[in-house]
This record gives sequence, structure tokens and C-alpha cells, in this order.
Amino acid sequence: MDNFTFYSPTYFVFGKESENETGKYVRRFGGSKVLLHYGGGSVVRSGLLERVKKSLEKESIGYIELGGVKQNPRSGLVYEGIALCRKEKVDFILAVGGGSTIDSAKVIAAGVPYSGDFWDYYQGVPVEEALPLGIVLTISAAGSEGSPDSVITKEEGMYKRGATGEALRPKFTVMNPALTQTLPAYQTACGITDIIAHLYERYLTNTKEVECTDRMIEALMLTMVHEGPRVIENPNHYDARANIMWAGMMAHNNSCGVGREQDWISHNIEHELSALYDCAHGAGLAVVMPAVFSYNMNQDVMRFAQIAVRVWGCQMDFNNPAKTAAEGIEALRRFLISIGMPKNFEELGAKEEDIERLAHSCCYGDGRTGTCEGFVSLRQKDVENIYRGML
Amino acid sequence: MDNFTFYSPTYFVFGKESENETGKYVRRFGGSKVLLHYGGGSVVRSGLLERVKKSLEKESIGYIELGGVKQNPRSGLVYEGIALCRKEKVDFILAVGGGSTIDSAKVIAAGVPYSGDFWDYYQGVPVEEALPLGIVLTISAAGSEGSPDSVITKEEGMYKRGATGEALRPKFTVMNPALTQTLPAYQTACGITDIIAHLYERYLTNTKEVECTDRMIEALMLTMVHEGPRVIENPNHYDARANIMWAGMMAHNNSCGVGREQDWISHNIEHELSALYDCAHGAGLAVVMPAVFSYNMNQDVMRFAQIAVRVWGCQMDFNNPAKTAAEGIEALRRFLISIGMPKNFEELGAKEEDIERLAHSCCYGDGRTGTCEGFVSLRQKDVENIYRGML
Repeated sequence: MDNFTFYSPTYFVFGKESENETGKYVRRFGGSKVLLHYGGGSVVRSGLLERVKKSLEKESIGYIELGGVKQNPRSGLVYEGIALCRKEKVDFILAVGGGSTIDSAKVIAAGVPYSGDFWDYYQGVPVEEALPLGIVLTISAAGSEGSPDSVITKEEGMYKRGATGEALRPKFTVMNPALTQTLPAYQTACGITDIIAHLYERYLTNTKEVECTDRMIEALMLTMVHEGPRVIENPNHYDARANIMWAGMMAHNNSCGVGREQDWISHNIEHELSALYDCAHGAGLAVVMPAVFSYNMNQDVMRFAQIAVRVWGCQMDFNNPAKTAAEGIEALRRFLISIGMPKNFEELGAKEEDIERLAHSCCYGDGRTGTCEGFVSLRQKDVENIYRGML
Repeated sequence: MDNFTFYSPTYFVFGKESENETGKYVRRFGGSKVLLHYGGGSVVRSGLLERVKKSLEKESIGYIELGGVKQNPRSGLVYEGIALCRKEKVDFILAVGGGSTIDSAKVIAAGVPYSGDFWDYYQGVPVEEALPLGIVLTISAAGSEGSPDSVITKEEGMYKRGATGEALRPKFTVMNPALTQTLPAYQTACGITDIIAHLYERYLTNTKEVECTDRMIEALMLTMVHEGPRVIENPNHYDARANIMWAGMMAHNNSCGVGREQDWISHNIEHELSALYDCAHGAGLAVVMPAVFSYNMNQDVMRFAQIAVRVWGCQMDFNNPAKTAAEGIEALRRFLISIGMPKNFEELGAKEEDIERLAHSCCYGDGRTGTCEGFVSLRQKDVENIYRGML
């Protein structure tokens, strides 16, 4: 196991009607003037935004609003949010939404006290200071509610990149699984896929002797395999929603990813797709993962055989572990299709003629130097081959 | 799943030689005058205490010392520590040791700003304020390094009781698995047993639909089953030590115990033994757990069958789940014996003639009202029967 530090100081408030306590926690963590950041549509229609506002008013906390966050959140709204917060002397950012809203809120929080261009953070500058941030979560997916990460798409060049830093950990996160019951099945399935990807990307490691975190990752994966089909079949299954919601946070707060190398190749290859076609990140991952894993499987056949046996219930073929490993990948593929995810480029809305461009951006875009690094080191030709595996 | 809040703001510094960074983290979390609290013997002999002092001196942090914490830490030293901290105007408590030292340090931290008798906390008053606390961990066992709990024995009446409160969470914990390599095998095994107990006590729940935390508990249990025998066979196995150390923290910071009722009957029944005979807590638990589980198994046979199958590798007997459940308890018992734990009253140094007294103290001692509550509600006669099952 490698040396590490782990720090997850987010206060989680989990359960039915927990959103009504939002104001109390903003107060507890020092907010007096809030930027309420959200997407639009559903949080307004469902009445959630009104309930959150009421909870702020109950604590006499002032707020201004910035809605309009879109899937694959863009840099333009971030610049707008930073300027607004400075002008209005906001001292607390409150995100009401899913991963896109949270990621946008995180970098607004970091951008306000930063004198440079916030995009620096997405080119490797660690985030060391940010306004305090709270979250009311509306979808189990990104894990951003408990992570120090943020992913934003820069409109100039359409680069989708990630930033990280302890200062991006939310002060508190309100998690009411019932809020996710009104999600369309497709979005629910996209969230499940994203959670599974966060687990696979941590599982695929070259670090040896990591039994504890291996087992924890498998535990969360087994939870998704058990609960995923239940919420697709019955969207109102509160307990299944609750198990997915806690698993989604645990999958990405890194308590099961410490002390080991991690992969993130699937995320990097997917980010090119959602940046170019504006598809849902989870849907992109559903197409990307089986292709990436099949291509990289020979890096460590036994690792793929282990997850095949322990998570997907495959029988170990002791004479041919590669067969077991491949069966595990096939089981993942079938699972993702069964919950309604796309299975290839066409269903995702991606185009074969873009493959070279996608692979080039993945390996060379925005300052990269010719490889996509993770569990294996891939060159542009490899990435092209992987995209071709999705046709 | 039940509603819950979860807050684990401890900064974990994990890995080889991490103790040399202690001073840096005391500084980061605001300490300028430290009480260095420890047991004696091994932390002095091994040179660990000297290394920690050097790291404080490097940061120009003053310190005073209070050693002498014993296994099953006593109230007397706590009173002494509180008085000393007040007199010397200490602003940070640093525990160097295992669960006993940490628990003693925690309540000194809470007692300094408290105007009443600290024992109030062990009779149900929640701890809301405490001096900041840091830890250098020397044994994987109690999980106190990441928990809001403390257990102390009151010398007057020899009551062993627990206190809890968010203020008792350490600000930071330094975890170097190599420090545990010099532990005697017996202490290592006691620690493993304590971790397993923390997992069982969370697993035994009457809350339905808790797949996520069930799976996480099983994951940590499987880690102990895999790594336990490896460290007993080879005390210098760093990676096995590391996996146990992280599992021990995760087992007790409650990330796998949220949203569900918990048991703690085994702990309560054991506390009477270690309070009276001053045996090691883990050794007591090794004798207590199989007896408690066999007695309580019929409360929920399928729960015991589930852990038998998923953790202990038993084959499910679909015509007779109780048989599978019992096989799981027997597998636990054999496992604990295999790592060197005692198997009955005699090996523990406990006496049959004390059973009534032990059971009475468990159900009526120090303000209790006739039952021992958890997964089931036990009366004194039940507890007596359970103790008899250990003969």
C-alpha cells in the first residue's frame, strides 16, 4: 500500500425531508449571504428550490440566485458567477442539483478569492482557498458532493477538464434520497453508471496488496448491482435509492481509493465525447468502459478476473483466467444495457469520422503531451483503437 | 434505511515514517502547548516518543507529559490530566498509543473546558466541547482514532462505560502501520478481534434494506479474515498491517454503520469482564461474541446466515438456514482461536462464581434499569445464561 493522506470533513445530513434543514447548516458553517446555484427546470418545478429558500429565510440568511447550469457545465457561467459573488459580497455558495451544478458551484467558490483566471485550476494549479460551499443533492451520480474534485468544460476549444483541492470539499451536503425519485429512468441509470465508473477507475491499479480498498470497492459495486435494477423497475423505491445515494458518495470521497494508484482512463476518454456531443457523462461511460477494459485487460488479467468473480459472480476458470476476465467485462456490458444505457457510438450520437479528432484531443489537447495516462499509458493510436471498439 | 448525520472531519496521515510529521499537524490544527499523553513501556523503548517530541520541537511547540495510561484506562489519571492541563494552560492534547491512551486523552480534552465532573459524559451527557486532539496510533484495534467515542473505567465501583460526542473526533491521526510490527502476537490478535467486533455490532441490526452498509461491513470483515492470519504468521508484513490499520479505522468511524440500528451487546457484556479481571478487551470479546451470537441468533436467523455465506464462505442450507447461521458463528469461533485468542472463561481468567455479579452490573450497574439493550433486549437472566455459555 502507498502512503497517503485522507481528509473528508463534509457534514452529511441524510434522509427524508432533510432539505428543510439547509438553512440551519448554512448558518452553522458561517454563511450569511448565499449564492443559490442551480440548473433550472426540475428543482424549480418540484418545489425543492422554494423549500430551500424557505429554510434560508427561516434563519434570516440573505441570498441571490444564479440558475442555468447545463449538463457538462461551461466556463461562461462560472465567470458570471464569480463576478456576481464579488459584486454582491456573497460569503457562501449553495448548490442545489447534481454533479454539474455542484462542479460549477465549486469553482465559483474557488474563483471568488483567486486573482488569476480560474481555468488555471483545470490545468494543474491546486485549489487552496475557496468560499465555503454547501450542497443539496438531487441525483446520485458524480460523487462531487463528497469529493475535492470539479469538472468543467472550457467553451474556447471545448476542453473538458478536472480540478482538485481540499478546499473544494463541501462543508455540508444534504442528501434526501426521495428527491431522486422523480428523475427520469435514463438519468437514474446514467448516475448508476457514473458511480460504477468511479469504482472501476479506483479498482484498476498497479499497486499490490490493497485488499481492504479492493474489498470496499467491490462492496459498493455489489450494492449498485443489487439496487440498480430495483430503482429502474420501481422509481419510488426509497431504500434502494438511499443505498445508491450513500454508495455514490462513498465511491468518490476516496475512502476506498487511498493508498493505491488509480486509473481514470475511461473518464478521460469519455470527457472528449461529452464535450463534443454534449451527451450525458454516464451514458458516455457506459459505451467507453467495456471498450477500455477489453483493450487494457492484458495489463493485469488477474485483476479483471478478481472483479469478475467477486462482483459479477463469474466462475473462475483456473486454466484460462483471461476467459473469466473477459466474462466479467461482458457482464458489466450486459448490466449497463439492462438498465437502459447505450451500447455503442451510434446510440450515443457519436460519429466514426470524429475518432481521430477525439483521440488527438484526449492525448494532446489543452497542454497534454501525447499520452493518456492511467492503469496503462496510451498513445493516440491506442485511444483511436479504443474508440473504434465502441462502433 | 434510517435518517442520519455523518461527520468524520479527522485528517488521516497514513504511511511509513508519518510520525515524523506530527508536529506539522499539531501546528496546522492550532496547538501551541501540548499535553503528550501515553502509556509507557513500548512507546518509550521503541524511540517513538522521542521522534514525536523531536517533531514538536522542530515546530517550536512546547509540551508537557503525562504517561502511565493502563489497559482499560482509569478515571484517576483522567482527573490528574485535566488538572495538569488547566494548570499548565495546555491548548492541544496529543495521544501516542492505542485505544486506551486515545480514550483517556479524549476525555481529558473534553474535561478541561467542562465545569462539572467528567463522568457525566459517561452517564449520557453529550460532549459538545473539547480541546483539539491529535493521535499517533500504535495499534490497530479500538478505532478510537477516527471515532467520536471514549471508554473509561471508573475506579469507584469499577464501572466501564462509554461517552460520545462529535467534539471527541480527533483533528488528525497519524497512522504508520510499521509501528504495529513490534506488537506481541497476542496484542495484535486482540486488536483484530476488537475490529471484528466493531463490524459485527454494526451488522446485527433490525433495520431492513441496508445493502450498502451491509456490503461495506462484510468487505472490512473479509479484509480481517484475509490479513489477520498473515500478520500472526509474519509480524513484519507491512502491507497486511496497513490493510488492517485502514480497515480498523473504517470499521469504527461509522461510515459503515449509518442509517441502521446497531447492537453493542457484546461490548457491554465484555466491559464487565475487562473491568473486573482487567483482561484485554479484545480477548474478552473473543470469548463473548460466539456466546452472544449463539444466544441471540434466533432473533434473525437470515442475518446470521447472510454473514455466514458472504464472509465465512459457508454453503447456504436452503432447507435449514439456522444450520448455516450456526456454522458462521462456529467459523468465527475457530478463526479467533486460530489467531491465538482465548476460547472460554477459564482461559480468560474469569470465574463462574462471578456470573451473577457480572450480569447484575451489566443490567443494573451505574444507573442502568434492568436490561442490556441492542439487537435484542436482554434481562439479567439472559445475560447470566450468555456468560454460562462461555464456561
